[in-house]
Parts: sequence; C-alpha cells; structure tokens
Amino acid sequence: MTPARVDFLYLDEKDMIAAGVLNMHECINEMEKVFTLLSNGDYIMGGLNDNSHGILIDFPEKPQHDKMPKDGPDRRFMAMPAYLGGEYNVTGCKWYGSNIANISKGMPRSILMMTLNDTDTGVPLAYQSANLLSAWRTGAIPGVGAKYLARPNSKVFSIVGAGSIGVSSAEAILDVCQTLEKVKIYDVIKSTAETLKKRLNDNFPKLDVQVVTTLKEAIIECDIINLATAGEANPKIESNWIKAGALFTVSSSGDFDSVFAINSMKLVVDNWAMYEAASDEDSYPYYNPTMGVIGRQFLDWIHENKMTPEIITNIGDVITGKAEGRTSDEDIILYGLGGQPVYDVAWGYRIYQNALEKNIGTKLNLWDEAYQAR
Amino acid sequence: MTPARVDFLYLDEKDMIAAGVLNMHECINEMEKVFTLLSNGDYIMGGLNDNSHGILIDFPEKPQHDKMPKDGPDRRFMAMPAYLGGEYNVTGCKWYGSNIANISKGMPRSILMMTLNDTDTGVPLAYQSANLLSAWRTGAIPGVGAKYLARPNSKVFSIVGAGSIGVSSAEAILDVCQTLEKVKIYDVIKSTAETLKKRLNDNFPKLDVQVVTTLKEAIIECDIINLATAGEANPKIESNWIKAGALFTVSSSGDFDSVFAINSMKLVVDNWAMYEAASDEDSYPYYNPTMGVIGRQFLDWIHENKMTPEIITNIGDVITGKAEGRTSDEDIILYGLGGQPVYDVAWGYRIYQNALEKNIGTKLNLWDEAYQAR
Repeated sequence: MTPARVDFLYLDEKDMIAAGVLNMHECINEMEKVFTLLSNGDYIMGGLNDNSHGILIDFPEKPQHDKMPKDGPDRRFMAMPAYLGGEYNVTGCKWYGSNIANISKGMPRSILMMTLNDTDTGVPLAYQSANLLSAWRTGAIPGVGAKYLARPNSKVFSIVGAGSIGVSSAEAILDVCQTLEKVKIYDVIKSTAETLKKRLNDNFPKLDVQVVTTLKEAIIECDIINLATAGEANPKIESNWIKAGALFTVSSSGDFDSVFAINSMKLVVDNWAMYEAASDEDSYPYYNPTMGVIGRQFLDWIHENKMTPEIITNIGDVITGKAEGRTSDEDIILYGLGGQPVYDVAWGYRIYQNALEKNIGTKLNLWDEAYQAR
Repeated sequence: MTPARVDFLYLDEKDMIAAGVLNMHECINEMEKVFTLLSNGDYIMGGLNDNSHGILIDFPEKPQHDKMPKDGPDRRFMAMPAYLGGEYNVTGCKWYGSNIANISKGMPRSILMMTLNDTDTGVPLAYQSANLLSAWRTGAIPGVGAKYLARPNSKVFSIVGAGSIGVSSAEAILDVCQTLEKVKIYDVIKSTAETLKKRLNDNFPKLDVQVVTTLKEAIIECDIINLATAGEANPKIESNWIKAGALFTVSSSGDFDSVFAINSMKLVVDNWAMYEAASDEDSYPYYNPTMGVIGRQFLDWIHENKMTPEIITNIGDVITGKAEGRTSDEDIILYGLGGQPVYDVAWGYRIYQNALEKNIGTKLNLWDEAYQAR
C-alpha cells in the first residue's frame, strides 16, 4: 500500500482564541451535547469502569531524593484521555502540569495541552494550547447546571473565587440566567475580585456588581453561588447562611456540613461513575480540600455510612429526562463538578473544526512516510 | 511579575532521527541508568502505588452505539505519564493510538507522541514523534536484559516476531552480546522475516542469519530468544524445546507452561510494582494474549495460587546488586517486559537535549503572555 503522510494542526493560545475558544454560549451548547452522550453511555474514559477522570502524578510530602519535588498546593501532573461518540467520534488526551508557585513567575497555575486523534488510526489531528479550552469548558459546566437547576427567576448570583475558573463560570451562568440582577464577588485576593468586577461592569452594564469581603456576605440571600477556589482554600459554608432555593455550583473544594448536605440539599454531579472510578484509584479519605473535588466528599460520606449513592443525580440524566432535577422553588441544590476529559475532547474538537474552516493554525508534518511501517 | 513567554520544541520523525533516536548503544546506556533510578526509587508514575504503566482507553466487543469502535487486535489508546529523577529530573507523557488495521493503510500499527515538561512549572519543553523513540527504548530493554542475564559466550540468537520491536530488540541484543554467531528469524509474515535477514546481513556480515519457518526451530538450541509478536499471535513454547541456560526476553505475549516456568525458570521483570499496579487497574484474568504483557501472566499465576511474587526479580535490582541475576550456566531465565513511561521520559529527554545542542527541530510559541495568568 502507499505509505501515508501524516500532518496535524498546531493551535497556540492566540489561534485558539481566533478559532472561538472564548465563545461561552457555544461551549455551553457543546457541553449539553456531551451530557446527553454521557447519559446515553456513548463515550469511553479510562480506569476499571471506563469513567476515570485521568491518571495523576503527584509528589511526596517528604521526598527521599535530591531533586524530587515536594508536594505543594495544586502541584500535580495529570493525563486525561477519552473517546467521545455521537457527532464527535473523536479521541483525545489532555496533559497538564500544575503548581500554584507558577503565578509568582508570571505563568498560569496550570499549563495544559490537548491532543486530538483520529479514533480509527490514532493519527494526531491537532495539538492545542488547552488553558482557555479547559477554563471555558470548566466554566460552561456550572452554566449547564444553572440552566437546568437554578430556581427560575433567580436574582442574586455570588462568585466565590475569581480566578480563571471563577471568571469563566460567571460568564456561563450569566449567559444562561438572564434574570440575574445582582452579583457578589468574593476572593481572598481582593485585587482579583476587583478585576472581575471591572470586567462584569464593562460586559454587563445593567448588573449591580459588588465586591464583598466576607464569605458570609457571599452566601446569604444568594440564589446561585459558584465556588471555584484554588490552592489551600476550603471555604466553610455555614448551613444557616443558605437561602431556600439556592443552587451551589462547585468546581472546587467547599466545606459543607454533612448532615445538612445529605438531608437538606439535593446532590447533583457531572458523572457519578467518575467518582466511583476515583474510589478504585485512590484510598479513603478520597476528599482532599487542596485538590478540590467536592464529589469526593460524597465518596467519604458514603464510606462513613452517612449516605448511600442512590441520592445522587447525574446532570446528564436531568437533561435527558431520566432523572428529576429541581422539583420546587425551595430545593437547595449542591451541584458538584470534578471535570472530565470528554469535555476537553468535545470543545477541543469544535475549536479544531473552526480552525480548519477559518484556516487558522500551523500545519505540522509528522512524517512523509513512516520510517517503520509496522 | 513579568508575564513569561512560553516556547517549546517540535521534533518530527526526521528530526528525531537526526537527533539520534536510532542510536541503540546510547539508548541502552540510558535505560541502564533508568533501571538504577527504578531500583533506588527515584521516579514516580501514576496509579495507586505510583507504578502504573498508564491509563488505557479500549473499546467494547459489542458496541451499543453507531460509531463507537469495536475491539480489535492491538486496538487501544494509552496515556503513559512519569516523573524521572536523577540527572533527568523531568516529567513527560506518551500518548498513542494503536490499531493493527493501520498497516493495511500504509501506517504503523501504533502512532505515538511524547510531551516532555518542566517538572517545576509544567511548561512543555518538547513535543516529539515517538514511534522510533518507543521502538528503540522498547528494544533497548531486552538489550539490558541480555547484557545482565544471558549466558556468557551465548552463540545462537533467535528473533520471534520481526516487527518494529523485534528489529530494535535484535539490534540491542546484538550490541550487548558480541559472542553471538548465528541468528534465526521467525515471523508469521515470511517477507517481514526476510526484510530483517537482509538488514542483519548488511549490518553484521559475519553473522549466520537464517529465516526459519516453524516456531520449534526458533526455540531449540537457542541461547537467547526474543519474543516480540503482535496482534493475536501468542506463540506456544513447548518446555522440551528450551535449551539449558537459555534466556527469553519477552516484550509481547508468549504461551509458557506454568509449571515449567515457575519451577524451572528464573522470572525477571522490568518492574514488578508496575504489574501490582495493573492488578489494581484491571480484574482477573490480567493476562490478555492479544495485549501481550507476559508479566501479567505471573499475576494470574499468583491469583491462581500457583506461585508467590517473592520468586520474581527486578532487573534494576540485578544491576544495582540488590538481587541475584543468573547464578549458573544452566539457569533458564524468563525476562518479561511490560514497558514503562520512565523509559520514554529518559530517551525522549536525551534526544531533546541532543536536538537543542544540534539546533534541530521547530520552535513553537505557546503564548507571549498567557491570556489568563491565574
């Protein structure tokens, strides 16, 4: 047979922007499609149950070797592979390194790259800067949750943690909840909160945007609260601060009272099977506040016999009508998000398609003819 | 702080060759260093015990969705991340797709890409075509085994499976065993065997190279036998074919009699902890002949109470003197190899260093200044 030349497309961060990675409205649409595929089982991730978040490299608290890094806030590497079916039918892997110390070096906390591959041959289709890809898809997921789970006519929205995930989550939630009138922003670094305030004032001039200085102010009287903290932050949410009908969209850690959460909140997640996979890959306690995945707290509560997994609902099943979401204006909902590689595959593929259409990016040759054809 | 510009180096297959990826002698040296680091614990891979081979995406035998691929020979995607210490102190991830049907399309069975990252920041250093990287590092590992485990004065070497791994393994073993006089080649595709014969005749004119047409001929009277089959091949090795003092270097599947292997062979592996990790990530039976990792057969034999793990030796411990390798000219040794991402990190990093030194490759910009610095 004729040897096959292989080329693929490299998209740097500017290319990704030019190809539409910051289009939150489109991203939310894609994520809804992903959740429908999840609900129907038309995807494959890694791990024993084909639902793994990914494979982690982390570092010891007390390294026994000269140069081996020491554990630290947000310090890890992670590879996140997935096949996604439906109209996508594409496979990919996100690989990133993260270290909160990057910020003091003028770099993002995490530096992420995405590879998309032809599902049939494994040929790379694209290699993409994935910082914005990740931030936007991560922000879109709270947006999907707010669309399906927020109390109709929600007025007050609170942003706890105004880093890149907080920013994109805010954009998504404001996109889907057109009734919002007031926004509160809380961040341990006040200048970060002020930066987001300015951005929201510019983009949403009708909104009343306030920076608040205590966590309590950021919770009370709020209809929708987005938690997206980083590093060692683990905000303690007092149950008596929470308004009836509130929705928490949680992409990070959050310290909720277990009795209140289990008995007085409806627990919704992105994909419960992913947390079950985490229980194969890790040991109790599964929840690590500095890693910030609230659904792992549910694993701990199950392990501690405080609850059973039956009370947990997948957002995909709410979208496809297989499960109930909000049933009254009084429901308090805790929507916990862990992040899944299927999101990266979907949004990465859409941006790749846009780039092809608009002739964006750098074409790279892998080989004209492979040195070894077997 | 000043925003940090990020660039990295892209190395296509030709660049990798120019930077020395086909230098087997150097590759064997690097792999010996890797095994020393493994024996000393100066590395981190994924999984519960930090020793995972990687995370697998495979496909169902009976897909329930329109486009979802069906399982087939060598059909999988795999992400393989690792941190490697010592003089390397670098982190990386190999990601590949594999499908034996590629061969009929003029493409290699597997298409592999390697990303190397700064361990501290996660910044990508290099994105490399990893087909030859993988084939050479995979070939070097039997070479390291032959150097430490073959009977001194070995004369007859047999190559069972003459695909890319068979070719590179042969090159490695011929590099380390200078006493070899005769080579037998066996492949189910005769033309593949003939191609390797020609190559060996050209490169090693003093060797007596024969293509043999039965597996039996490829085993009897041989001092070193390299098994590197692919797809559905699972060569059945009759115990009475095996010469006293023989060394089997096995990068693929191989059907050995369990009683003979356990009682009459010394079992050596690349890293037993990796197989223990596989037992966390998979369920019994662990050995799948079409995936071809002989060390997983040992997991099955342990599960079946036929043997205990204490009889297994790590090659790294042989190199560092923590364990005994060959103790007599009569020892029959089965050296089983599963492949580890630390090899890719080491060889990838060496080639990257060579490329920097020789100004090889394409410099790619990720960003001048990240769009979001948090």
